[in-house]
Amino acid sequence: MKLFFGQIFPDLIIDSDEQQHITKVLRMREGEEISVTDGKGNLAKGNLVFEGKKASLDVIEIKENLPDFSPKLHIAIAPTKNIDRIEFFLEKAVEMGISEVSFILTEKTERKNISIEKLRKQAISASKQSLRFHFPVVNDLTKFSDFMKNLDSEHTFVAHCNESLERINLNAIDIQNSKVKIQDSDNHQPSTINPITFLIGPEGDFSDREIQLLADIGIKAVSLGNQRLRTETAGIFVAAWNYEKMF
Amino acid sequence: MKLFFGQIFPDLIIDSDEQQHITKVLRMREGEEISVTDGKGNLAKGNLVFEGKKASLDVIEIKENLPDFSPKLHIAIAPTKNIDRIEFFLEKAVEMGISEVSFILTEKTERKNISIEKLRKQAISASKQSLRFHFPVVNDLTKFSDFMKNLDSEHTFVAHCNESLERINLNAIDIQNSKVKIQDSDNHQPSTINPITFLIGPEGDFSDREIQLLADIGIKAVSLGNQRLRTETAGIFVAAWNYEKMF
Repeated sequence: MKLFFGQIFPDLIIDSDEQQHITKVLRMREGEEISVTDGKGNLAKGNLVFEGKKASLDVIEIKENLPDFSPKLHIAIAPTKNIDRIEFFLEKAVEMGISEVSFILTEKTERKNISIEKLRKQAISASKQSLRFHFPVVNDLTKFSDFMKNLDSEHTFVAHCNESLERINLNAIDIQNSKVKIQDSDNHQPSTINPITFLIGPEGDFSDREIQLLADIGIKAVSLGNQRLRTETAGIFVAAWNYEKMF
Repeated sequence: MKLFFGQIFPDLIIDSDEQQHITKVLRMREGEEISVTDGKGNLAKGNLVFEGKKASLDVIEIKENLPDFSPKLHIAIAPTKNIDRIEFFLEKAVEMGISEVSFILTEKTERKNISIEKLRKQAISASKQSLRFHFPVVNDLTKFSDFMKNLDSEHTFVAHCNESLERINLNAIDIQNSKVKIQDSDNHQPSTINPITFLIGPEGDFSDREIQLLADIGIKAVSLGNQRLRTETAGIFVAAWNYEKMF
């Protein structure tokens, strides 16, 4: 499947960057079959048509409201000093079905700015690569103190490396999440399951003060095993752990 | 812990690249405490001593034969066209405790050569980053046909994307592996568990012929879920799945 990004409703419009890609990079020909998704669960299949420099679609079929099989996971991560690392995290997490990403400014976050538009484009690109028809939400860079205000503490966890503080085993969350699923199973609406949110700190970890603030509102700390993982590796690992739940 | 690579037995010699790093990049001072591992389970702690341009260690303590908690995993992966992707895979897999990596030349592998020495250095660097005292084995680039000759089919799996062929669920391996563990539990030597080997194909996947050759010798095919993962993402995901077993 050759998948591109665009608007499907009310009219089908292939995204302008994608049009460039189709004509200038891929040098595709009129009549070739492609698919277009709006990243909101809608998919159009059709044949390429060129009108001047503009590429559009002679629609064969539209599928609406396709189900989203990804288990809901929101990762809030501190941007790494080397931006390549956070870009790689984003690409891998999107391929493994993450539903929402936030970038947080913590006390020890070394990088204070990111190009959110570039990251959003990369999330779209990774979504297409993995044939996702529901694109993840990529939120603006947010101060830790602001991000904390809207947390559902029952479904939020913080991964930190301070071995002297109490941390639950990652597998314990599986059980907790199952409980949530059982509670929701009466009305057979798995989509009502609250997403799990995971906070991942910067290279120097969360500060003791930040960990305490999270503990104060009932957010559990989690250990990600015996090895010291880099920030982006911790994020990728949590995405992988979550992706495995889909099996 | 400031961890460096070097020889511990018969004499302690800090690796020459590491000496450069200590003196020229980190500009460390005499008397600072560092640790040195040989990547074979031995660890020395001591204070830095400089003799001319040479950095060595005034040893305080040596720990021998430290246990290796990593579950044994060997990933054989086709190098990606873009070498950054395979380097990133290697770094993440090492952080998550992989014990052996092989690079395989399959029919559709686009990249025919890699700098194995550079990759080995990166594996050492990632091992130090995650405080591993047992470094993974990084094997030379090998032809698929040669690699196939030495496989223990009972503990080897191939991840491919051909949906028309029978593939087991990744979680089924957990059960199979548990069986192996139970068989071995009589003599209480978990270290005798055979490592699991996972074959990960190139961007264009394994060929039908390669998949058939593996099936002919009893190697099971595994699905890595509903999303189409890139080569390096599949490798990272398998390493993450394996790392979670340590919890």
